[in-house]
Amino acid sequence: MNTLRINGERLLRRLWELGQVGALEGGGVCRLALTDADREGRDLVVRWMRELGLTVTVDRIGNVVGLRAGRIEGPPVMTGSHIDTVATGGLYDGNLGVLAGLELIETLNDTGIVTRHPLAVAFFTNEEGARFAPDMMGSGVHQGALDLETCLSTVGIDGSTVAQDLTRIGYAGEVSTGDVRARAFVELHVEQGPVLEEAGIEIGAVTGVQGISWTEYTIAGVSNHAGTTPMRLRHDAGYVAAAIATEARRIADETGGEQVATSGVIELEPNLVNVIARRAKVTIDLRNTNEDTLQRAEARMTQFVDTLAQAEGVEVSARQLARFAPVDFDPKMVERVAQTAQALDYSMIRMPSGAGHDAQMFAPNCPTAMVFVPSRDGLSHNVREHTEPAHLEAGANVLAQVLLAVAEAD
Amino acid sequence: MNTLRINGERLLRRLWELGQVGALEGGGVCRLALTDADREGRDLVVRWMRELGLTVTVDRIGNVVGLRAGRIEGPPVMTGSHIDTVATGGLYDGNLGVLAGLELIETLNDTGIVTRHPLAVAFFTNEEGARFAPDMMGSGVHQGALDLETCLSTVGIDGSTVAQDLTRIGYAGEVSTGDVRARAFVELHVEQGPVLEEAGIEIGAVTGVQGISWTEYTIAGVSNHAGTTPMRLRHDAGYVAAAIATEARRIADETGGEQVATSGVIELEPNLVNVIARRAKVTIDLRNTNEDTLQRAEARMTQFVDTLAQAEGVEVSARQLARFAPVDFDPKMVERVAQTAQALDYSMIRMPSGAGHDAQMFAPNCPTAMVFVPSRDGLSHNVREHTEPAHLEAGANVLAQVLLAVAEAD
Repeated sequence: MNTLRINGERLLRRLWELGQVGALEGGGVCRLALTDADREGRDLVVRWMRELGLTVTVDRIGNVVGLRAGRIEGPPVMTGSHIDTVATGGLYDGNLGVLAGLELIETLNDTGIVTRHPLAVAFFTNEEGARFAPDMMGSGVHQGALDLETCLSTVGIDGSTVAQDLTRIGYAGEVSTGDVRARAFVELHVEQGPVLEEAGIEIGAVTGVQGISWTEYTIAGVSNHAGTTPMRLRHDAGYVAAAIATEARRIADETGGEQVATSGVIELEPNLVNVIARRAKVTIDLRNTNEDTLQRAEARMTQFVDTLAQAEGVEVSARQLARFAPVDFDPKMVERVAQTAQALDYSMIRMPSGAGHDAQMFAPNCPTAMVFVPSRDGLSHNVREHTEPAHLEAGANVLAQVLLAVAEAD
Repeated sequence: MNTLRINGERLLRRLWELGQVGALEGGGVCRLALTDADREGRDLVVRWMRELGLTVTVDRIGNVVGLRAGRIEGPPVMTGSHIDTVATGGLYDGNLGVLAGLELIETLNDTGIVTRHPLAVAFFTNEEGARFAPDMMGSGVHQGALDLETCLSTVGIDGSTVAQDLTRIGYAGEVSTGDVRARAFVELHVEQGPVLEEAGIEIGAVTGVQGISWTEYTIAGVSNHAGTTPMRLRHDAGYVAAAIATEARRIADETGGEQVATSGVIELEPNLVNVIARRAKVTIDLRNTNEDTLQRAEARMTQFVDTLAQAEGVEVSARQLARFAPVDFDPKMVERVAQTAQALDYSMIRMPSGAGHDAQMFAPNCPTAMVFVPSRDGLSHNVREHTEPAHLEAGANVLAQVLLAVAEAD
């Protein structure tokens, strides 16, 4: 184990300074992808990269990579994350992974260490997907999972395209998105969930990312008077939506294990106390680390919806909003994270990620892993998002040691 | 049985002419209470009342009564309903009961009949409650169930008070609301439900009005990430709302009989596919003709909500939006309606009303009954509301014969 440690205060200063860009009154940050605030944040991080001596390249989807040469040439050992936020985001989501990378670079500069393989710190365009769909756009294009031209022509929530806004903010780079390949990829991120905090654990060695299945059900029933329509003559879109949401919980409870199910959207029309809804919408978010189990949950939901639709005499249309198979990170890399945390005397558990991350785009193409640190109250995408400074520093040290070890390996 | 029959074509002409006031493009009517359109409708009906020789009075809540003297003095046998509509109303809801009354008056005028007791045709202010709460305001004040001054100071959805708008449209009358008492009250109305149509029946002899219980549940949970939050750590306001709505259906199904239950409003915050709702609202509308059964349904729902709130770790606050005990109409009056329909060779069933009506305000104070005619597809509060002309005429003839018989009785 290398005795090198990152400078926690310097890391915090950068996190706070970047958090001033797009800061919301009363706390939190709004730096939606490719807005003026995002440009300002990008300019700041690029300035830091250049000050640290990194060679900065911008690719055609706006991903920014800062490269530090190694003793030998070849693909870099890469770290990074994103600096875009949701509309009411926090200071650490994404930013931690990018700035912890820069902190490692500065620590190496201070000590004069040059790694065997090159190192790279990247931030990827539009990880949040809050302004342009889908999320993880930059890393997806970078790793060939998403089509560049399709993403460039994507229209956002306020009407402009990714290509237009990349040009507008000066980040329509000329480097081909595939030009910088990674020898390995390690990402530090806040957990965005309550598991580490609840267990009193400092470091999560992330084993993979849960598979995600999002379905939107639109139910067409018949609107009628809540008093005058006997139960047997109803075609109640609102009831069907509620029953689907309730069934999702039942499926999660009965499946057990890592299975989660959420019904985050329910909308009725006309949404009046004494009117049977003519139309309803409900979304179901199912996630599991095991693809077979996830598929069984999906099949059970489909069966329930079909049976209920027929019984109630309503039309239900299902639209898949998102579907990702579970991602397994490289077992050797995961073990390296786990053992590094233990060697640094941090408490550690192995755990899956419930949220999507840029790292999952790298997993099919190179050895990949992630490091999690606790989120207070499990809060994420929230201006009250918080991680203790000691945990930020712990995560950055685990990240640094893993990167150094991989960058020194044959 | 009197051989006198009303003139169906004349009734239809009046319904259609009144339906031109506030007519919506493509069909339907918008004459929200105390708007300019309501004034225009009132002015038209008052002109008809005067043309028919009725003595018109307007009381302090804007109820309009047209009186036709009898052979003796005393309280009139009264009919009527309302001419205000919901924002997307039909031609017959309310209007039928008022204009069928005028049609009887014109038929009596044509034949020179003077009844023993006086007759009165009324229309009551703001039956719909679409612009000012509560509904049945005019008849409620008229019969002493609602307080006049409270109703006058009620602020509507667009910011003005009942008193201001009564003055503005010229219907702030000076007659005390209690001055015209009814000897008996009979109201003709469209069913607003599918029961008569489904059974192929022309006339409903209304036995009473279902008791109504409206509760709004507001659920305060904890917003969190749909992927990263294990099921056991959730406080999901959206799930609780959906489960309450689903339970309402179960209660109705298991109670059986006339019990209905509707969850017409469900709202989640933030209402995003991958975010556990921090807040949710759901309304439950329970109705039954039997007060004990209705109370048991309410108690069962309360018990369910309490247990679920504790299990999920959310705060649920319940607000009663409305509560009316079931109303039983006068059995002798109901039988008179039933036998009159049969004597006129109309098919008839006895049935409760699932909706509220002005007549229920009269029921505690004088012999009261209602006559229902079918609603096509059970549609109500809908621009596609329709009742066949033959059914409109049938209902008006039943109403006429019942009113005549009661007006001739000792």
